Amino acid sequence: MNGQFPSVLLEKAVGEFAKLPGVGRKTALRLVLHLLRQDTTTVEALGHAIVTLKREVKYCKVCHNISDTEVCRICANPNRDRTIVCVVENIQDVMAVEATQQFTGLYHVLGGVISPMDGIGPGDLQIDSLVERVNAGGIEEVILALSTTMEGDTTGFYIYRKLEHLGVKLSVIARGVSIGDELEYTDEVTLGRSIVNRTPFSGTM
Amino acid sequence: MNGQFPSVLLEKAVGEFAKLPGVGRKTALRLVLHLLRQDTTTVEALGHAIVTLKREVKYCKVCHNISDTEVCRICANPNRDRTIVCVVENIQDVMAVEATQQFTGLYHVLGGVISPMDGIGPGDLQIDSLVERVNAGGIEEVILALSTTMEGDTTGFYIYRKLEHLGVKLSVIARGVSIGDELEYTDEVTLGRSIVNRTPFSGTM
Repeated sequence: MNGQFPSVLLEKAVGEFAKLPGVGRKTALRLVLHLLRQDTTTVEALGHAIVTLKREVKYCKVCHNISDTEVCRICANPNRDRTIVCVVENIQDVMAVEATQQFTGLYHVLGGVISPMDGIGPGDLQIDSLVERVNAGGIEEVILALSTTMEGDTTGFYIYRKLEHLGVKLSVIARGVSIGDELEYTDEVTLGRSIVNRTPFSGTM
Repeated sequence: MNGQFPSVLLEKAVGEFAKLPGVGRKTALRLVLHLLRQDTTTVEALGHAIVTLKREVKYCKVCHNISDTEVCRICANPNRDRTIVCVVENIQDVMAVEATQQFTGLYHVLGGVISPMDGIGPGDLQIDSLVERVNAGGIEEVILALSTTMEGDTTGFYIYRKLEHLGVKLSVIARGVSIGDELEYTDEVTLGRSIVNRTPFSGTM
């Protein structure tokens, strides 16, 4: 941000907002000045929501998803298929898969992927607890729904090595051309893989 | 945002963040999950900074800039030229002009521009208090540094009509081709005006 702040309080609030990812000092100033124009209730609701969330949030002791209770709504739901577990990186991924309404099993949130560059090893992720869940029995299939990146692939392979002798079926989500994408603009690795992993034509796509 | 939130607390915090301008539910979720990964002190600092700012912020009673004191640092500074007042829309504009280090006078923050479409009339802005400042004497020049938009021009003209009989010099900031811009890509109104308002060549640009 160019220029000196006219108020220390303003500068402090802008400084705190600017710590958020993707928020520069200029955006932070815009957000703070917007808040100043709102009534006190609205502003305090935001401040309160942040502090309360941080103090009171829980993580499901089964799948490690964010939860208000010891065991999350998905793990506690008797209608979900307990024989199939979808392994994802983070909470957003649980929400993304849930939004498809195509999966009725349970989840396991790793909390990231193995990334030596960022200092994240297998011990920093919920991999041991996944092995324990599988060992405890009842799970027939583990679906790896990780990012199609080097780190995602490494993590998938690591989990595969940990689970391969436990008699559980391991699968990965299909990789191929995104729906709505034009072949001409699809990268060659994706396109190549989508040809190798072609599926029988079923009339509906 | 797609998908149901796994936690009511999370949903509430995301909802509050999503009220900020330019922040959608997806960005709000990313910001909130980032905050969850920070330690409690950092999160509470943000919450506290927002609430404190809203409760304790003051507006300078002279120029209406944000301030920690009754009269802001600029208005209180004895080294500033009190005979010249720069009229701007908002606090960001004060910071932008200050950052140029080319202005040593005082400011007057209108709090916006006349915009009938948004229901903002002259009475919603600090125009009467500007007239009072000029009437009180001591001000020799008023510089209008407003946006070069229809609303900015309307506001400038309105202020001109209010001040023209008060024996104060009125000026507007120069409009022309931005430094670093290529003529080829400059719009014709700006380019035309920059020719009409040409200045004598002085060796430095």
